[in-house]
Amino acid sequence: MIVELINTGSELLLGRVLNTNQQWLCRQLAELGCVVSRQVAVPDTGPDIQGAVRESLGRADLVITTGGLGPTSDDLTRDLIARLLGRSLREDPQVLAAIQAYFASRQRAMPESNRVQAMVPEGARVLHNAFGTAPGLALEIKPNPYRAGGEGSWLVMLPGPPRELRPMFTNQVVPLLRTLLPPEARFACHTLRTTGLGESWVQERIAPALTRLVASGLDLGYCARPGQVDVRLSARGPQGESLVAEAEKVVRELLGGSCYGTEDEELEQVIIRLLTARQATLAVAESCTGGCIAHRLTNVPGASAVFLAGLVTYSNAAKQQFLGVPAQTLAAHGAVSEPVARAMAEGARRATGAQYGIGVTGIAGPSGGTPDKPVGTVFIAVASPRETTVERQCNATDRETFKQVTAQQAMDLLRRTLRD
Amino acid sequence: MIVELINTGSELLLGRVLNTNQQWLCRQLAELGCVVSRQVAVPDTGPDIQGAVRESLGRADLVITTGGLGPTSDDLTRDLIARLLGRSLREDPQVLAAIQAYFASRQRAMPESNRVQAMVPEGARVLHNAFGTAPGLALEIKPNPYRAGGEGSWLVMLPGPPRELRPMFTNQVVPLLRTLLPPEARFACHTLRTTGLGESWVQERIAPALTRLVASGLDLGYCARPGQVDVRLSARGPQGESLVAEAEKVVRELLGGSCYGTEDEELEQVIIRLLTARQATLAVAESCTGGCIAHRLTNVPGASAVFLAGLVTYSNAAKQQFLGVPAQTLAAHGAVSEPVARAMAEGARRATGAQYGIGVTGIAGPSGGTPDKPVGTVFIAVASPRETTVERQCNATDRETFKQVTAQQAMDLLRRTLRD
Repeated sequence: MIVELINTGSELLLGRVLNTNQQWLCRQLAELGCVVSRQVAVPDTGPDIQGAVRESLGRADLVITTGGLGPTSDDLTRDLIARLLGRSLREDPQVLAAIQAYFASRQRAMPESNRVQAMVPEGARVLHNAFGTAPGLALEIKPNPYRAGGEGSWLVMLPGPPRELRPMFTNQVVPLLRTLLPPEARFACHTLRTTGLGESWVQERIAPALTRLVASGLDLGYCARPGQVDVRLSARGPQGESLVAEAEKVVRELLGGSCYGTEDEELEQVIIRLLTARQATLAVAESCTGGCIAHRLTNVPGASAVFLAGLVTYSNAAKQQFLGVPAQTLAAHGAVSEPVARAMAEGARRATGAQYGIGVTGIAGPSGGTPDKPVGTVFIAVASPRETTVERQCNATDRETFKQVTAQQAMDLLRRTLRD
Repeated sequence: MIVELINTGSELLLGRVLNTNQQWLCRQLAELGCVVSRQVAVPDTGPDIQGAVRESLGRADLVITTGGLGPTSDDLTRDLIARLLGRSLREDPQVLAAIQAYFASRQRAMPESNRVQAMVPEGARVLHNAFGTAPGLALEIKPNPYRAGGEGSWLVMLPGPPRELRPMFTNQVVPLLRTLLPPEARFACHTLRTTGLGESWVQERIAPALTRLVASGLDLGYCARPGQVDVRLSARGPQGESLVAEAEKVVRELLGGSCYGTEDEELEQVIIRLLTARQATLAVAESCTGGCIAHRLTNVPGASAVFLAGLVTYSNAAKQQFLGVPAQTLAAHGAVSEPVARAMAEGARRATGAQYGIGVTGIAGPSGGTPDKPVGTVFIAVASPRETTVERQCNATDRETFKQVTAQQAMDLLRRTLRD
C-alpha cells in the first residue's frame, strides 16, 4: 500500500513549529506495515494544497493530510479539497451539535467562527474529534481521476494539533486502515538503541557480520543522535520476522552492553524500570544539566515510586547547603572537578536517604571554559551503597545538546552500575 | 526566489526522528526573505532521491537537500545527484586531508569508510564542515534541463546532523545566498508571542481591527501551541515593514500583557532578562513539573547570574526536608493544594535567600486524579519580597504537555509579578 503524507501549514514552511505530526504518523504507519513513501509540507494556499493533493493522489493508495481544519481564516483544507474533488459541502447537524457540546462543557458558547467546522464534503466519513472541535474526514475517491489506471484511493484529513490528531488516528483511522491492508503486507521492523558509540564504529563492527542476512532481504539502517546510535533492522514478507530476529542476535553479541534498549525506549525508562525492579530509590544532584536529568526521569509514569528528589544546585552556595559539599573542596578543586562530583552524588544519597545518587558538574557553555577545563568538560558521579564511580567526559557542543548528551551519559553510568 | 527543501533519510519516513532540520532551515530562510515554498522528505533510495530532486529543480531557483552525506551504506545523496546531473566525482585531496585531520584531532585514524566523503562532483563548491567529516556541496546548474525556460538553479547539499548543518548553513550558505538574492525581494516578518489565550479568541479580537491592513498586503497567521498562541505578521515589498509595524501596534493594544515576547523568545528568556535587569535572584520548587522549569530556565545563557537552585521535591519527605513544608499542612490539605504550593514557594525563597520563589504542585497524570482534584489540577505559587500569589489551573493533557503548559503558566505568573 502506497501512503503519502501532506502536512499543510505556513507555520511549517516558515519554520515556526516542529513537524511532530510527520514523525508520529510515519511511526504509527510503519508499525502497521505501511511505510510512508513521501511526505510533503505545503503552505496554507489554495494552489499549494490542491497541487500537492493532486500529485499525491496520482501515486498513492492512501493520502493523509494534516492541518487546515481549524476555525481561523488560514484554515482552508476542507474547502479546497472538496472543490478539487468536486464534492459539495453541507452542514452536518451531528457535527454541529458535537462542536456546541465541546464549548458547553467548558461553560462557553460556541464562537460563530467555529461553525464552519461542521461543514462535511459529500460522501465523507466523519471522524469524531474527542479533544477538539474539527472532525477528521475520510473520503474514498473511486474512480481516482489522477491515477493512470483509475484505481481508487483514500484521502484522510486530520486536524493539526497533535493532541487531537493522535487519538483520532489511533481510534478511528487505524481501524479503517486495517480493513484496507492486504494480509500479505507484513513488515517486520526492530530497532536497537545504543549509547556511547560512534556511528562509523557501529557500522564497521556489525555490517560485515550481516551481509548474508542483507542478501536474504534484511534492510539495515543507522540513525545517529546526540549520545546515541539506533540500529534499525527491517524486512518484508513471510521471512521478515525471522530475518530480523537473527540479525538482532548478531548485533547484540557484537555490541554487548552498549545496547540499552529497543524501539523508542529512552534511557530514563530503562532506569526507572531497573530501579523499580530492585525497589531502589534515587536522588539526582545537577549543576550544569540544570534539571534536565530530573525532568527526563519524571517524564516516565511511575517515577514517583523510585525518584525521591532532584537538587539543581546551580550556585556553589546551593551545593554546600543542600548537598553538604565542603567549602574547602570547592575552593581547592573548583566546582567542576571529580571531588565535587563525588561529593554531590554522595550528598544527594545522604540528604535524601536514597540508595543511589547521581552528581553532575560541568561547563555547558558557551562561556566558562579554560585551557585546563574547556567548554564541554563534565564530571559525572554515581554513588551506590557500595562505592562511588566518577567519569570525566568532554561534550563540546551547544548548550542544549550538552545537557542532553551529559544527561544520557549520567543515566548510562547509573544503568551500568545497576547492571553490575 | 523560489526555494524548495528536500530532506533525505528513511529514518524520517519511518518516524524515528523529528525533522528539526526542516524547521531550522525554513526559519533561517524566512528571515532572509526566502520563504520555502515546499518541503519534501524522501527515503534513502535512488529513485526517491533523484525523483524529488528532479521535480524540485523543475520549479525552484534554489534546492537544498539534507542528509545522505555520511559514511554508511545508506548515504547515497552525493552519488545519486552527481549521476542525475551527469557530473563525475573525483577525490578532493584538501577535503580528504580535512577528514583525516578531524580524526587525528581526536587521536584516531580515519576509518576507511569515511574516505568516500572526500568525493566531490565536478564543478561543485565545497562547503567546509567544522563539526563533522562530510563537506557540504553547492552546485550551479545552468542551464537547468528540468526548467521550462532553462533558467539556472542552485543545488546545495548539506549533511544531516544538525550540529554540522547549522554552522555550515550560517557561515557558508548564507553568504552565497545573499549574492543570489535580488535587492527588491524584501520580506518583513514579525511574530508576537502570547500566553494564556485561546486561538479563536485571539483571532476574534484582532482580525476585525486588521482588515484594512490585510487589504493593503498584510498577511496574518496564527500558530497555537501548548500554553501559547503566536500571531505572525508578514508582508512583502517596500511597504512591508511599515504594514507590519502598524499591525504590531494594533495587536499589542488589543492583547496587552498577554504578549510576552517576539519572534522566538521563550518565556524563560524573558524571565532571566527581567531578573537580571532587577538584579534579583530566583529559586524554584517543583513537584509535578519534575525539573522542567529549572531545565528551561538553565537553557538560557546567563541564568547562573540569577538562578540559585531548583528543588525537585518529588516526594512529600523531600518537600518537608528541603523546603520546610510542614507535615501538618501536607496532612491537612494534601500535597496538591494551595497551602502546600504557597509553602513550597516561600520555602524555596527562605532556604536559598532568593528574592523570588516559585512553587508548583499538581497531578501530571495519567494516574493520581480524584473527582475533587482531577488529573491536570495544579497549584502554582510565586513568592516575592512583598507577597505570595497562588493560582489554580487544570491542564488536562498528557504528562509531557502538562509539564510544559504548567511550566509556562508558572513562568508567566512570575513575569506578571515582576512586571507589577
